Amino acid sequence: MAEKKMSVEELLAKAKKPGEDAMKLHPFYKGKIEVVPKCCVRGFDDFAIWYTPGVAKPCRDIETNPEKVFEHTNKANFVAIISDGTRVLGLGDIGPEAGLPVMEGKALLFKYLGGVDAFPICLDTKDPDKFIETCLLLQPSFGGFNLEDIAQPKCFYILDELRKKARIPVWHDDQQGTAAITLAGLINAVKIVGKKLDEVKISMVGAGAANTACLRVMISAGVPPENVIMCDINGILHSERTDFEETDPRYQFCKTTNKEGRRGGIPEAMKGTDVCIAYSKPGPGTIKPEWVKSMAKDSVLFTCANPIPEIWPWEAKEAGAKVVATGRGDFPNQVNNSIGFPGIFRGTLDVMAKTITDEMCIVAAKELAKCAEDRGISENYIVPRMDEWEVFPREAVAVGLKAIEQGVARVKLSKEELMKCAEEKIKRAREETQALMKEGFIKLP
Amino acid sequence: MAEKKMSVEELLAKAKKPGEDAMKLHPFYKGKIEVVPKCCVRGFDDFAIWYTPGVAKPCRDIETNPEKVFEHTNKANFVAIISDGTRVLGLGDIGPEAGLPVMEGKALLFKYLGGVDAFPICLDTKDPDKFIETCLLLQPSFGGFNLEDIAQPKCFYILDELRKKARIPVWHDDQQGTAAITLAGLINAVKIVGKKLDEVKISMVGAGAANTACLRVMISAGVPPENVIMCDINGILHSERTDFEETDPRYQFCKTTNKEGRRGGIPEAMKGTDVCIAYSKPGPGTIKPEWVKSMAKDSVLFTCANPIPEIWPWEAKEAGAKVVATGRGDFPNQVNNSIGFPGIFRGTLDVMAKTITDEMCIVAAKELAKCAEDRGISENYIVPRMDEWEVFPREAVAVGLKAIEQGVARVKLSKEELMKCAEEKIKRAREETQALMKEGFIKLP
Repeated sequence: MAEKKMSVEELLAKAKKPGEDAMKLHPFYKGKIEVVPKCCVRGFDDFAIWYTPGVAKPCRDIETNPEKVFEHTNKANFVAIISDGTRVLGLGDIGPEAGLPVMEGKALLFKYLGGVDAFPICLDTKDPDKFIETCLLLQPSFGGFNLEDIAQPKCFYILDELRKKARIPVWHDDQQGTAAITLAGLINAVKIVGKKLDEVKISMVGAGAANTACLRVMISAGVPPENVIMCDINGILHSERTDFEETDPRYQFCKTTNKEGRRGGIPEAMKGTDVCIAYSKPGPGTIKPEWVKSMAKDSVLFTCANPIPEIWPWEAKEAGAKVVATGRGDFPNQVNNSIGFPGIFRGTLDVMAKTITDEMCIVAAKELAKCAEDRGISENYIVPRMDEWEVFPREAVAVGLKAIEQGVARVKLSKEELMKCAEEKIKRAREETQALMKEGFIKLP
Repeated sequence: MAEKKMSVEELLAKAKKPGEDAMKLHPFYKGKIEVVPKCCVRGFDDFAIWYTPGVAKPCRDIETNPEKVFEHTNKANFVAIISDGTRVLGLGDIGPEAGLPVMEGKALLFKYLGGVDAFPICLDTKDPDKFIETCLLLQPSFGGFNLEDIAQPKCFYILDELRKKARIPVWHDDQQGTAAITLAGLINAVKIVGKKLDEVKISMVGAGAANTACLRVMISAGVPPENVIMCDINGILHSERTDFEETDPRYQFCKTTNKEGRRGGIPEAMKGTDVCIAYSKPGPGTIKPEWVKSMAKDSVLFTCANPIPEIWPWEAKEAGAKVVATGRGDFPNQVNNSIGFPGIFRGTLDVMAKTITDEMCIVAAKELAKCAEDRGISENYIVPRMDEWEVFPREAVAVGLKAIEQGVARVKLSKEELMKCAEEKIKRAREETQALMKEGFIKLP
């Protein structure tokens, strides 16, 4: 863990290293995922089972009983990672081709961490209605959709419409995924400072996809909206602001948050609050140390801009923050979506759920928090890390059980069955990857 | 090889066996393909290369230079197998979900025989324009499209439009694929009977996707259209028939074929011809032995309806046919698309071609014919079989070279480079599948 031991120059250089490696290794591998058989090929006669003429029987069976598609195909484990490339990472609108390396990377994480067969689908349109229509047309092949890297505000519209219209679960990781991990961190952070989730005052810096979803999910999880003060680029949201369409989530937030009626910008928003959650402009310098100083005693700060947080963690700590989380892996408390979606989808797919509800998202967050707590939480450890394998099946079980409870699951499994199912699939994916490396099908660079 | 040794009942029972196995084994495997990593995962730090933050660099590189997508991703080896499920095998319009087992099976063949990473995309629309639009939107992720199992006449319109509008190669296997294999068989069959392709008189039974494409490609390959007599459901095509729209391929065929102006149905069409190519209604009994008797001496018969040919091969032989080909693997001379598309796509993708021209299709057919000839052709061996591995790289080389010659390739490779490339990829796919079985990731039933 870096903290103050490295200079800013060293930290920036370190932040560059993965990019340099990526430019060498992407052309070496020419892609991060491939498609392989998962059924036996004992000889050429087997193709008469898997293709014509044998395959006609399972086809007929599905025609007669549509739910059998989950039995005769891999639909239940196929997820489309769909993007239009209009807001890729922090790079902006770089287009669908340029977004493909990210979607392939996500597919890799889906498999290795969650045992999910995800496929990158980059769409050549910026029109949200065409995007929605295309997703709906793609439903037959997939068990779920993971939306990714779509510009706002259309990402809200696309997610809302697809959640209404699709027969399969739809997830926008930049919204729900980020919200789940942030909520997990928040649950443990307030525990560490001895405060309560329904009592803390929370400032939020930024009102983009991440913070908007965080706020919505936090409210569902029991945070009173009136305790929240949210800032967008024009300052604090309050009841007299009229610069939003009714469809903009901020329109509602103006009415429900900021009960005390604060005015001003980021410093005014942060003042006296117990928690600050920032998903805004990369720093350093977006949040100033004196603003952190003005927060309540034992404050908690999520400074999650990438690649550079709004304020360096050591500056925030010196200014009095007790717990600091960032989006980076080289500081403690990484708020990392990759500990969320693989397990959440694993559970969703294992019960063949028809949707992913906010409640499923919240139980995932709570289970994540519990995973960290079971290992022993501290100022420097509020959320699990990616290498803590137990996290993913535990999330899957929590999510699957909630789906069953809410009546959105197609199959009902017990807690033990869900655990066995998730563990087997995730273990197999990891071991398969290692075997492919050992046998030389994946060469080392 | 079955021939006359089995009774009709035994043959029908044998034809049922793959379907029975399929109903047991499809639920056992729950799908025929999966997605796995093709890059190293040495530890969790590698995810910083494959995903954020490292991946941003290759993304930027593609944004600046769009062709780099072929270098940084698997786009060059991704093929979408796209169907609307409106004409699946001989089952008719069973819908996109019920078509999924076929598309997954095709993806399996693509990988095992051609080293191609194909993914099944079943579209929830019957509207040809929506189908076309969706394909165009899907282009960024893929290096090619394989259209499959689409009803006619819309399959002609969809293929034509997509070949005009898409930036990546588009192939409708039920048209071009079938045409390539049939042409390969025809080339060798006429050799065996000592006749010439530009001299034989050819009757064609059926004017669906298969025979329409066969005729188009045969004409491009040097068969004079005036020597052809084609029958559709209403009888022989001739210059006075007016029952077609101008966009219907038969509209042109009425003008260009059947120079002698024959009238009548199948028996009149077949009479005196050297070759009969039937892709029509499953038999037996669609073609009668006496009609075969009426053909020229040393006649050649392609009786390719599935699952039962228009006439049993032994009946055709008894009636005087010298060479008989069918669509079935349990008779000699199987006209099997699976010896075509994997090699044709391998060559197309290896040169990153922008399209698959009819000339590429024809060189593939000629190379297929040559493969069989090199092993020694006979009445009972006019086309290669699926287990003759050398076929696929040889096709790939022929197709790749033709693409380069025609200026539709993005990269130029020598014959030797193309061979090495294709051999390596196909060998790897086969060995990988066997390794997955050996290591237990694919269990035996």
